[in-house]
Amino acid sequence: MRGLERLIAAALDEDIGTGDITTDTIIDDAFFASGIIRVKENAVVAGLMVAGQVFTRIDPRVRFTCMVQDGESVKSGKILVNVTGRASSLLKAERTALNFLMRLSGIATLTRLYVQELAGTDTVLLDTRKTTPGLRIVEKYAVRAGGGTNHRFGLFDGILIKDNHIKAAGNIKKAVKHIQRIKPYHKVEVEVKDMKELKEAITAGADIVLLDNMDLKKLEQALSLARGKVLTEVSGNITLGNIKAVAGLGPDFISTGAITHSARAIDISMKLTNIYKKERT
Amino acid sequence: MRGLERLIAAALDEDIGTGDITTDTIIDDAFFASGIIRVKENAVVAGLMVAGQVFTRIDPRVRFTCMVQDGESVKSGKILVNVTGRASSLLKAERTALNFLMRLSGIATLTRLYVQELAGTDTVLLDTRKTTPGLRIVEKYAVRAGGGTNHRFGLFDGILIKDNHIKAAGNIKKAVKHIQRIKPYHKVEVEVKDMKELKEAITAGADIVLLDNMDLKKLEQALSLARGKVLTEVSGNITLGNIKAVAGLGPDFISTGAITHSARAIDISMKLTNIYKKERT
Amino acid sequence: MRGLERLIAAALDEDIGTGDITTDTIIDDAFFASGIIRVKENAVVAGLMVAGQVFTRIDPRVRFTCMVQDGESVKSGKILVNVTGRASSLLKAERTALNFLMRLSGIATLTRLYVQELAGTDTVLLDTRKTTPGLRIVEKYAVRAGGGTNHRFGLFDGILIKDNHIKAAGNIKKAVKHIQRIKPYHKVEVEVKDMKELKEAITAGADIVLLDNMDLKKLEQALSLARGKVLTEVSGNITLGNIKAVAGLGPDFISTGAITHSARAIDISMKLTNIYKKERT
Amino acid sequence: MRGLERLIAAALDEDIGTGDITTDTIIDDAFFASGIIRVKENAVVAGLMVAGQVFTRIDPRVRFTCMVQDGESVKSGKILVNVTGRASSLLKAERTALNFLMRLSGIATLTRLYVQELAGTDTVLLDTRKTTPGLRIVEKYAVRAGGGTNHRFGLFDGILIKDNHIKAAGNIKKAVKHIQRIKPYHKVEVEVKDMKELKEAITAGADIVLLDNMDLKKLEQALSLARGKVLTEVSGNITLGNIKAVAGLGPDFISTGAITHSARAIDISMKLTNIYKKERT
Amino acid sequence: MRGLERLIAAALDEDIGTGDITTDTIIDDAFFASGIIRVKENAVVAGLMVAGQVFTRIDPRVRFTCMVQDGESVKSGKILVNVTGRASSLLKAERTALNFLMRLSGIATLTRLYVQELAGTDTVLLDTRKTTPGLRIVEKYAVRAGGGTNHRFGLFDGILIKDNHIKAAGNIKKAVKHIQRIKPYHKVEVEVKDMKELKEAITAGADIVLLDNMDLKKLEQALSLARGKVLTEVSGNITLGNIKAVAGLGPDFISTGAITHSARAIDISMKLTNIYKKERT
Amino acid sequence: MRGLERLIAAALDEDIGTGDITTDTIIDDAFFASGIIRVKENAVVAGLMVAGQVFTRIDPRVRFTCMVQDGESVKSGKILVNVTGRASSLLKAERTALNFLMRLSGIATLTRLYVQELAGTDTVLLDTRKTTPGLRIVEKYAVRAGGGTNHRFGLFDGILIKDNHIKAAGNIKKAVKHIQRIKPYHKVEVEVKDMKELKEAITAGADIVLLDNMDLKKLEQALSLARGKVLTEVSGNITLGNIKAVAGLGPDFISTGAITHSARAIDISMKLTNIYKKERT
Repeated sequence: MRGLERLIAAALDEDIGTGDITTDTIIDDAFFASGIIRVKENAVVAGLMVAGQVFTRIDPRVRFTCMVQDGESVKSGKILVNVTGRASSLLKAERTALNFLMRLSGIATLTRLYVQELAGTDTVLLDTRKTTPGLRIVEKYAVRAGGGTNHRFGLFDGILIKDNHIKAAGNIKKAVKHIQRIKPYHKVEVEVKDMKELKEAITAGADIVLLDNMDLKKLEQALSLARGKVLTEVSGNITLGNIKAVAGLGPDFISTGAITHSARAIDISMKLTNIYKKERT
Repeated sequence: MRGLERLIAAALDEDIGTGDITTDTIIDDAFFASGIIRVKENAVVAGLMVAGQVFTRIDPRVRFTCMVQDGESVKSGKILVNVTGRASSLLKAERTALNFLMRLSGIATLTRLYVQELAGTDTVLLDTRKTTPGLRIVEKYAVRAGGGTNHRFGLFDGILIKDNHIKAAGNIKKAVKHIQRIKPYHKVEVEVKDMKELKEAITAGADIVLLDNMDLKKLEQALSLARGKVLTEVSGNITLGNIKAVAGLGPDFISTGAITHSARAIDISMKLTNIYKKERT
Repeated sequence: MRGLERLIAAALDEDIGTGDITTDTIIDDAFFASGIIRVKENAVVAGLMVAGQVFTRIDPRVRFTCMVQDGESVKSGKILVNVTGRASSLLKAERTALNFLMRLSGIATLTRLYVQELAGTDTVLLDTRKTTPGLRIVEKYAVRAGGGTNHRFGLFDGILIKDNHIKAAGNIKKAVKHIQRIKPYHKVEVEVKDMKELKEAITAGADIVLLDNMDLKKLEQALSLARGKVLTEVSGNITLGNIKAVAGLGPDFISTGAITHSARAIDISMKLTNIYKKERT
Repeated sequence: MRGLERLIAAALDEDIGTGDITTDTIIDDAFFASGIIRVKENAVVAGLMVAGQVFTRIDPRVRFTCMVQDGESVKSGKILVNVTGRASSLLKAERTALNFLMRLSGIATLTRLYVQELAGTDTVLLDTRKTTPGLRIVEKYAVRAGGGTNHRFGLFDGILIKDNHIKAAGNIKKAVKHIQRIKPYHKVEVEVKDMKELKEAITAGADIVLLDNMDLKKLEQALSLARGKVLTEVSGNITLGNIKAVAGLGPDFISTGAITHSARAIDISMKLTNIYKKERT
Repeated sequence: MRGLERLIAAALDEDIGTGDITTDTIIDDAFFASGIIRVKENAVVAGLMVAGQVFTRIDPRVRFTCMVQDGESVKSGKILVNVTGRASSLLKAERTALNFLMRLSGIATLTRLYVQELAGTDTVLLDTRKTTPGLRIVEKYAVRAGGGTNHRFGLFDGILIKDNHIKAAGNIKKAVKHIQRIKPYHKVEVEVKDMKELKEAITAGADIVLLDNMDLKKLEQALSLARGKVLTEVSGNITLGNIKAVAGLGPDFISTGAITHSARAIDISMKLTNIYKKERT
Repeated sequence: MRGLERLIAAALDEDIGTGDITTDTIIDDAFFASGIIRVKENAVVAGLMVAGQVFTRIDPRVRFTCMVQDGESVKSGKILVNVTGRASSLLKAERTALNFLMRLSGIATLTRLYVQELAGTDTVLLDTRKTTPGLRIVEKYAVRAGGGTNHRFGLFDGILIKDNHIKAAGNIKKAVKHIQRIKPYHKVEVEVKDMKELKEAITAGADIVLLDNMDLKKLEQALSLARGKVLTEVSGNITLGNIKAVAGLGPDFISTGAITHSARAIDISMKLTNIYKKERT
């Protein structure tokens, strides 16, 4: 994953800085240990590979053995990982590895809840660009682990024409035609706020329309108009309470930022089960 | 803030990458705009300076004027910021700036709720190292904006002796004495799990004891023993529901990871109020 | 442009390193100069902004005034830029700025020749990923300055299913269906080598087909089959000599690597027209 | 090679970015493959080591076996390299590795043509600083592979006094004497435009003179004057058509930017000869 | 050690840059060698690990075997290290490795002299922030190797209230109380210049007082007042000639910048004992 | 200066890290101050520009006004610089700026002592590559400020053939001839240990010979042989006590590492002369 190495390095640097003054002072290099990483509540796991890289960046000789896989649904108490290696290496990597694992599992777990609401429909759950700054690539990975599908990764790899673009271009048709000429290789998505704009977008040749912040009634009308003519994405105020009803109207996609910006961390902890001194030979 | 520039650069890079293909294609450099950033729910604001830096990194000529200050409690609908500048610059910075502002305000808002529970007591609310990887410095800033106090920034600037350190050293006394000799300039904190360890830590000369995951009864006993002899920090399973009761027992500090690892984002959005073409002169 | 600052910094560093030993020794900071950058042959200009950034990175007080614009067709002898500033700054930036300008103008000039061959047709000229390592973003910019259109910027922002992908997936249909589910937001392009594969790609729902290395006869057959069903791109052995004939068959796109990987540099040079000592006041 | 790692990383990053969306989606990690890299026209090869580093940076377990050496002259159709490894690794490294190999082999091939024209003379072919920004170190390597000799790598490791330095110093003698005192460890080269300057440079104690843009007649006169007194370099408008005639006049060096700034790429491609699924054991 | 990799990379880059033009030209990769690193005067050694990393960064196959340990006191002529490997790798790493070893051993040796003066007292020798820019982490390591103890690593991990802080706060008491509330986890040190300030600091609850630039008489008075109430550090004009007398007054700490900013290098050199050509097999 | 920005950034980062916890807590942004930087002993000053960059990197609005120039010889007590600006900015930059200034002035001062010993001779004092890792460019600058001349900056910009190169090449002649062919643009220096090697080097066409570690008698013989045939450099065990005698023998250059690796720091300190609160307007 691009940028992941730099992110892990920055995360370790902010935690360890000039050194772990407690461990470096008390636990010398002759101490080794085994430990387990355990989840303390039901969850969908994500971030095991990232956590593993945190440990091996600190010390390539640490053994990090996964007992489950990313995307797996586990019960509280489940052991996720066995680790063994130099005790000081394990203690230095612990917090950073867990911080990744807790956050990413939180996202995967929340995503899974939304995805389960869509069971039995053809609607696909999409994420958004509302991710934690600097962590987009891993948070989008966690969404996939939870069963969601990724929308564009950034402004660079997907077209989304919004109101200000339309104003600058003059109207929807001009905006769509212009971008199709410059970027013939991308699908074109247009955000529309009412039936008039929806019709214009369809006529202009948009591939996808984004129906943002419409109430159920308006949505039903819009989706019925769009069906068969254009792909449809619904967003805005989607909750676990209403997503099933929205999906019942038959959109192709429902997107929500909540799965990345408002997931709470899953409680996961590491425990060293034994620590012992190894004599150099 | 150390590392903040790099974090902002990384965040913008992950969002913009090779370019904003929609905006770059449709909105040329002659378009300018004004806009507002508005909060959509009651909140304590944090991250205005960070958001401002996001805009000015994209384009130093953007004018970013704050209507409130970090740490201020605001009502839903409040305008936080007025922005003016080249339209394409505003659109490229928007998402990254909001992602910072939404997350940091989320942390400040949740922190404020915990701090309010401590009103009338002498207990201080502390954060932990359970922060989002790479964002510790800004998340700890948001804790302060919310009224909390920062515990150590990392393993490098504070001593915390835990069970594995004690095992490696032999006992609490040895661990404390040893580290006091090597790091005479730092306070020494020791995590204890029962009354026996608490007494050992006090006898050894610890400056602070961490009482982790004790129930209220055990806590009361421990705090009564420790009072006047050593500073006390309580952690583990602190919630908005129980923090007042814990504080009633009189610890010097209560620490919780929830304020950083499980704050949900505050809903904040940007709207361009006008967009117009400026002829070059 | 993402990465451009880093590229300019690296280019200046490789040229200047520990210092310009001739200029630093002989020309002290009191010397100032004016100069011109002139093209020595007919060309389409590209890279003026990049060249300007080279000068201002060396010294922000250099004045760099463009007499023409990127994309403009100019005659041999035309003055492209006037520069004034500290003499040592101009001499240190000169070679790196010219190296960019010569190469990018070479690409724009060659691109323009290909584009002119397409006049009167609806076929669009596309570039490829056959760019100089590290310079893709500026070379693709030069293609646009020359009148070409950019194909995907990299493996990250466009789908192209080739023979090995098809083998791994089992067949074209499986490959297309699978990727449409995971990446519903991207158009899907499939490279086909014969009529059988072309039909499969169309049936599978591909948005674009790449007809690679077919002779004119086979191309005609393929394009006639594909017309109205799928967008078509032709590539392989395209030259200034045959592109008109290929375009005559009516493909939507013709792509060629030659415009980036085999453009020769345009001869452009800088001359200081006067150099004088300014007394400090 | 200094900076090479950074260049390869930047080149891979610009091509792969957030991921190879086609390959990552379709070809899972269980697929392995063998392949060949083959040249499609007669050429002098350069860049094999660089290409190898591209593959091993993507995946250290890729086996990259060279069938020829840099600097070797090969016939069209020759297999240059055998590669084996994870299929997705090979496909991700392919384009970047070939882009290096095609460009560097282009430079080596063109250099060889110039060098062959100098056969039977004592004149040495030199390159210049007219290289692609950021690629100087590998392009100068390709020049050596082609049989050329490197002039200075940048402004930092060689002295070249030009007209503006002379104006600033007052005259040639002052410039030469001054720099010999500050940089006693470097040879001093002076660019001269006529016989008067040539004599001054010789008298001043220059080690090398650069005769720039003189016609054959003027060159003959200058070289005859300089012989035995100073080393001589000829540059300006050197072509494959005239280099032999220039060398016939007996200069020590002839330099040309064309071998680096205007070499066209050699056609080289990679083909996977088989791709298969390996079951995990 | 944080930052050490970057420091070694920068040091090698400034020495090798675009290549070792002598070695790269004359000694091809078939040459191998053994060598020794030997100290030419009595010294306390420090920096062996750093020197080893320099060699292995150049070439991971170099064998670097230490004959002594950091912190060991050795006689002139002692062999510190045996190295074997590719001859060109050894020659390229030599100077940078020795520059580290000579400087760090210089610091350790001078520190040891000061520490020996403190024998028989309870006073601890501290270093300061007066280190070479960019090398603090290794120079503080060398101090420890010499037997000294590290004061704070920087402004970020220790509190020291000086005159300007006191002026800004109003008085010592306000400064101490304020910082204890914001940074409850750090010891508080206050610099005092006379008895009045010393008393204020003690009353305010400072943990440590810094007695700077006091003469012996004033020091005696201050230490006698402070004893048992606060930890004491003495600094300013400490020399090998007077440190014993100062320690006789019983301060807890004496700090001096001289051990880092004015240690002269220890003479250490590398010699290749044989160099031979190895035929490829 | 190349790399200087990175060096200053690293130096500030190692000192300030996550923040100046004392100043950030006590001195708010409304405080401003003036101050002076004063030398406490006689010295030759070097590093003023570097120190200025340290301050302006922390805060571009700091005013840093030099009262003397680099290379100037000043008496104890002399004010070198006036600074004014935000108080917290001045306090954060202070230590790093002084650490540069103290070390570089130490080098300039010691260099000046050596140079003064050469007064009345034609011998030039050269530095070596025995500089502090990472600081070579500023330390070589300080040598020039002290009146010395720089030898090569690294292995990349000067040729020095030593014993191992000679062994690998076969003999001196082969080594010199070979390198003259590959690097025709550089002077060639050869280290010789006796008269036989000296003669070989002269015959081979070396430009400079390095006479290393010879006693005065042997030196006299060697210099008398070399005079008029080759430039001569003497090195090894040069001290302030013997340099005059060595220079009396008439070598072109004497080089010594002591001026960079064993200069002690000059005592320089900063004092804020007033600190005051400025009300925002």
